[in-house]
Amino acid sequence: MSILPSAEQVRSIANEYGTPTFVYDEQALENRAREALAFPHAFGLTVRYAMKANPNGVILQLFDKLGLHIDASSGFEAERALIAGIDASKIQLTAQELPGNLRKLVRNGVLFNACSLHQLEVIAKLSPTSAISIRVNPGQGSGAHAKVNVGGSMSSFGIWHKHLSKAKKIILEKKLRVERFHSHIGSGTDPHVWQQVARITLNLVKHFPDVHTVNLGGGFKVARIVGEQQTDLQSCGRAIKQEIDRFYRETGRRLHLEIEPGTFLTANTGWILARIIDVVETDTQSFIKIDSGMTENTRPALYGSQHPIVVIPIIPIDDTSRKKKKYLVVGHCCENGDRWTVKKGDGDTGEPRQLHEAGIGDLLLCGGTGAYCSSMSTKNYNSFPEAAEVMIKKDGVVQLMRRRQTLKQIVQ
Amino acid sequence: MSILPSAEQVRSIANEYGTPTFVYDEQALENRAREALAFPHAFGLTVRYAMKANPNGVILQLFDKLGLHIDASSGFEAERALIAGIDASKIQLTAQELPGNLRKLVRNGVLFNACSLHQLEVIAKLSPTSAISIRVNPGQGSGAHAKVNVGGSMSSFGIWHKHLSKAKKIILEKKLRVERFHSHIGSGTDPHVWQQVARITLNLVKHFPDVHTVNLGGGFKVARIVGEQQTDLQSCGRAIKQEIDRFYRETGRRLHLEIEPGTFLTANTGWILARIIDVVETDTQSFIKIDSGMTENTRPALYGSQHPIVVIPIIPIDDTSRKKKKYLVVGHCCENGDRWTVKKGDGDTGEPRQLHEAGIGDLLLCGGTGAYCSSMSTKNYNSFPEAAEVMIKKDGVVQLMRRRQTLKQIVQ
Repeated sequence: MSILPSAEQVRSIANEYGTPTFVYDEQALENRAREALAFPHAFGLTVRYAMKANPNGVILQLFDKLGLHIDASSGFEAERALIAGIDASKIQLTAQELPGNLRKLVRNGVLFNACSLHQLEVIAKLSPTSAISIRVNPGQGSGAHAKVNVGGSMSSFGIWHKHLSKAKKIILEKKLRVERFHSHIGSGTDPHVWQQVARITLNLVKHFPDVHTVNLGGGFKVARIVGEQQTDLQSCGRAIKQEIDRFYRETGRRLHLEIEPGTFLTANTGWILARIIDVVETDTQSFIKIDSGMTENTRPALYGSQHPIVVIPIIPIDDTSRKKKKYLVVGHCCENGDRWTVKKGDGDTGEPRQLHEAGIGDLLLCGGTGAYCSSMSTKNYNSFPEAAEVMIKKDGVVQLMRRRQTLKQIVQ
Repeated sequence: MSILPSAEQVRSIANEYGTPTFVYDEQALENRAREALAFPHAFGLTVRYAMKANPNGVILQLFDKLGLHIDASSGFEAERALIAGIDASKIQLTAQELPGNLRKLVRNGVLFNACSLHQLEVIAKLSPTSAISIRVNPGQGSGAHAKVNVGGSMSSFGIWHKHLSKAKKIILEKKLRVERFHSHIGSGTDPHVWQQVARITLNLVKHFPDVHTVNLGGGFKVARIVGEQQTDLQSCGRAIKQEIDRFYRETGRRLHLEIEPGTFLTANTGWILARIIDVVETDTQSFIKIDSGMTENTRPALYGSQHPIVVIPIIPIDDTSRKKKKYLVVGHCCENGDRWTVKKGDGDTGEPRQLHEAGIGDLLLCGGTGAYCSSMSTKNYNSFPEAAEVMIKKDGVVQLMRRRQTLKQIVQ
């Protein structure tokens, strides 16, 4: 779970940068990166950061410095990483949509992961000599929520495992060199599932003699609040390592391992800092209204996801003298679904949460929001500008990562 | 339901403006505005366009020309309407979050609707002499989906009806003049529910002798696809008119009526034009992948909402020779929940749809997307730029309403 910034620091950030503001913790980002880099492996490891989780350039640069590579989900993301100064050779493009400038990206050294038979044919035409990766749907999925399960027959991601003979035909005909093999099936915490997926994937790799790297994607679930289960990277890694070792014993091939965490690296390194703009009551319910909401964090509405929420009094008071009360925390949009306290797994149903008693003008932190919040929210709804983003550096200094958007930029 | 643009026009728009692009129909917008203006009333009517549905300046200007006023949900929306050239006196602000420049907005003539006791106190301090509106939660809600139900004790919108005595105390103490009374409770199609809400609301209005205008908000549901029920404005209007007539007989007061449609005015006037970038298969399922998705329309994922979808072949072929097939239509984001064909009311579950057989490069139209799509979607997810918006004018000419965003603007 996230480490809470101090109340004093929170007040000072609200004062200097306004609200709502995303607040990231450099030390936490570094810790997560090091944990990911310690993932067990048999013959080498590359950790690719799934930048769709949070594409801010400052985060990309930090991870680059720590030795992480990049998983880009669109040509725009690949370009964004290049703009941030990431070396092209460290970026792999795994996209549903082929970018218009694919030829240029690949010529500049961006790695390409073909996710369908069509993509194989396009890359063969555009860049016939390049060493590529293929993404396979091994026929199994796993995910904490139906929306993030990306394997199995109801998922469109990757070449369907039974179509690999068709893929091989294209590869042979077009003389493509498949050096990397990719299979990302969703998010889960069970090492046995990871091991099973690794085994199925490696059985498929046997048919591709040039493959030296296997990429099992991401989906390492984190615990945002007490009671949620977090993936144990070490257990999962050891389970996967057993399969890579077994593959080596069977084939003599030493496979390099890649993983692509996004949520794991960033979710619990960020908070949304909001201001309490109103506190209202009905017969049965108290509400905290904030100057943020689905515009910065749509996950509660989309997935019924649970985020830690803390009220920070604007004037310092002793915690022991603060009463507690049950609130629904609602956003600033004119929409009832704009809520941060919802039933687990059910974004349609509000669920009150026990919080410290709140007053208008107090601050509120929403944790576990470093991933899929600033990058995936209903931005500009009700014409609210995109929030500012700041980083608490390791030395405690606060760095502006992104200025708050202006109305002029919205209507551009 | 939306009128489908001609295949020829669709191809020409894709050619000139690229994809994805929002395509609006000026004639349809004008028709909807005239239907709303024909809402039955006893002593006068103002139709306010709930601009959060679609805040594009061209649409605001068109509605302004046709005699509609504006319902702004944030200070930013009010400013956006002013930028579009709307007269301040035609804009009413009904916001969860009070804007920083509220004093200036009100001084310039923007109308204010106080939505909580706190907001009453703020306006009394900022602009003590202004004639205001108050928004009340009458204790009842109605809505097609839990997320759009904005009345009742689990809703934070408006002053709770049992707190009106507190509100009156503030109003009397601060010498505020309450001339308008607002009660928006959600979206429904049943005239009896509208009549009931009108009756409850008007009973509350009796305690506010200066009120000359009652505003019942919006929430007039539309049918986006065959089988959905659309609000009959005439029936609802007649039911409400009976209550306003009754109020007149009982009190001698002639109340002006306001309504605030958003969806009704725009939903079925817009299409998202996308390109089919891939067609893939598993054992049990065929998928159409498009260069759009939740980045332009998050409603299927959020609400399980149903939108008409049409495949337009890129090369003209005779409709009778086209086969049909069941597809899941999925977006370009690396996320399984990025789908446009879902189970009704259940955004977590994909549901195949019978469509004309599709090929890569064909075009696809998604209808019913004029409201809460360009304004409320997970913009820039996977770093995709905001789509372009164009209007098919009444004379058939296509006008650019908003240029496609650039990557440079995203990383600004």
